[in-house]
Amino acid sequence: MQRYFVQADKWTEYKVSLNGDDFHHVVNVMRMVVGDIILCSHPDGMTAKCKIQHIGTETVNAKIIEWIADSAELPIKVSIAQGLPKGDKWEYILQKATELGASELIAFQGDRSVVKWDEKKVIKKRPRWEKIVKEASEQAHRNKIPTVSGVWTFDSLLERSVHYDCKFFAYEEEVRDRQSKKLHDYFSNINQGASILICIGPEGGFSEQEATLLKKSSFQPVRFGPRILRTETAPLYALSSLSYYFEEMR
Amino acid sequence: MQRYFVQADKWTEYKVSLNGDDFHHVVNVMRMVVGDIILCSHPDGMTAKCKIQHIGTETVNAKIIEWIADSAELPIKVSIAQGLPKGDKWEYILQKATELGASELIAFQGDRSVVKWDEKKVIKKRPRWEKIVKEASEQAHRNKIPTVSGVWTFDSLLERSVHYDCKFFAYEEEVRDRQSKKLHDYFSNINQGASILICIGPEGGFSEQEATLLKKSSFQPVRFGPRILRTETAPLYALSSLSYYFEEMR
Repeated sequence: MQRYFVQADKWTEYKVSLNGDDFHHVVNVMRMVVGDIILCSHPDGMTAKCKIQHIGTETVNAKIIEWIADSAELPIKVSIAQGLPKGDKWEYILQKATELGASELIAFQGDRSVVKWDEKKVIKKRPRWEKIVKEASEQAHRNKIPTVSGVWTFDSLLERSVHYDCKFFAYEEEVRDRQSKKLHDYFSNINQGASILICIGPEGGFSEQEATLLKKSSFQPVRFGPRILRTETAPLYALSSLSYYFEEMR
Repeated sequence: MQRYFVQADKWTEYKVSLNGDDFHHVVNVMRMVVGDIILCSHPDGMTAKCKIQHIGTETVNAKIIEWIADSAELPIKVSIAQGLPKGDKWEYILQKATELGASELIAFQGDRSVVKWDEKKVIKKRPRWEKIVKEASEQAHRNKIPTVSGVWTFDSLLERSVHYDCKFFAYEEEVRDRQSKKLHDYFSNINQGASILICIGPEGGFSEQEATLLKKSSFQPVRFGPRILRTETAPLYALSSLSYYFEEMR
C-alpha cells in the first residue's frame, strides 16, 4: 500500500488532505481513484489507513479508516555523523541510511574532507536532501522521516555530542588491531530507546588529532568487521548490524 | 600497506613479479621505489609481505619477506544471487558486496527484471566486473577476490542451488508478517565454513511463481529487518549482519 508523510496541519480528526507532490503522486503517478486505500503517516510517527473520498484540482481528501499500530522504526535512535565525502556520496548515504532506519543524518567538515561546503551551498542543497529522505522513508515503509542536519564543523560535532547516550567512531586502527574489542561488546551494553551517535570519517578517515579529540569526548573507537570499508559503506554496516541486534535477535 | 592480488604463475618460492595494471599502479600511481614494502596475495588466499627488489620496464620484482597470517575473510562462504537490476546497480552491488566479504556474486534473470542481458553483453561486461571486484578487494584488504558468475536463468539458479549448505531468499511477505521467524533464528543454525546462498529479487521483487519454486527448492524466506529495502540495499544488510554474527559476536 502506498504511504505518504503528511504534515500535521493537513490532519483533522476524521480526514487528511494531500497536495503538492503527494497530490501529483496519487493522481498522476499512481492514477488512484475515489475509494482507493492509502497509508498516511503523521509527523508524530502514527500511521492511518485512509480511503480516498474526493479528488480535486489540487487536493486529495482521504477519510481515516483506522490507525495502524505497526512500526518499522528501530527501537533505538541512531544518528550518523558523516565526514563530508566526495561527489554525490552524501546523497547516496542519505538514501541508504534512511532505508536502514537512521533517525538523524549529519554531515561534518573533517580534516581530510576534500570538499568544503559553505552555508550557501547547504541552503541550496537542503530541499533536495529533504526530498531524498522523504522518498526513501516512504518506499522503506517507515513511520518517521529522519532529520537531515546541515554541515557541522568538527568542533560543533564534539560540543553537540554531549546530548547522545552512546558515542562511537569508526577507526581503521581498530581493524588492524586483532585484539580490539568486538562490536557486540559495545552493542550489548546499549539500552532500548537509547540515542546513539556514530561518527564516520571522510575518504581519508580521521586525522590523529581528530581521533584524540573524539576519544577525549568519550567516543569509543570501533571497527565494522575486519575489512576496510569505504566511507559510504561504513554507515550501512553500522545500521544493518544494529538492526540485526535490536530487531532480528530479540 | 598497498595490497596486490597476483596470479599463481607469477610466484616462485622466494619472489613474486607484478606486471600490467599492478606494475602501472606500483610505478606510476604509488611511485614506489626499490626497498618499498607491499602486500601480495596469492589466489589461494595467503598473503606475503614483500620488498621491491627491481623495477624493470614492464615488471616489478619483489622478494617475499614473510607470509602473514591475518585473514579478512568471513568464516563462511556467502554467495549473493541478485535479480538483474536496472542501470548501474549491478556494478554498485559488485563493489559493495565485495567490501563486505562476499565470496561469489551471481546475477540472474528474474521474472520482474526490467533489463535483459544476452551472452554477448555479459562477455563484453565481464572484464569491467572483474576489475571492480579486484579493486574493491584490494581496498578492503581482503585475502581473496570474489568470483563473478555470468547472468544465470532462474532455472539454472535453482539447479545449481543444490551445491550450497544454506539457502535463503529475501521475501517482502516476511516483512509484512510480524509473526515471521527472525533472521537470528536462521543464522544461529549456520555452521562455520558453511556455504550460504542468498537470493534477492530485482526491483519488483520475486513473482509468486518464483517464490513457490524457491520454497520447493528449500530456500527459506527471510526478511532483512522490518523495513522494505531496495534491491541493491538488501545484499548489504545480509552481508553486514552475517559479519556481525560471525565476526563481531564471537
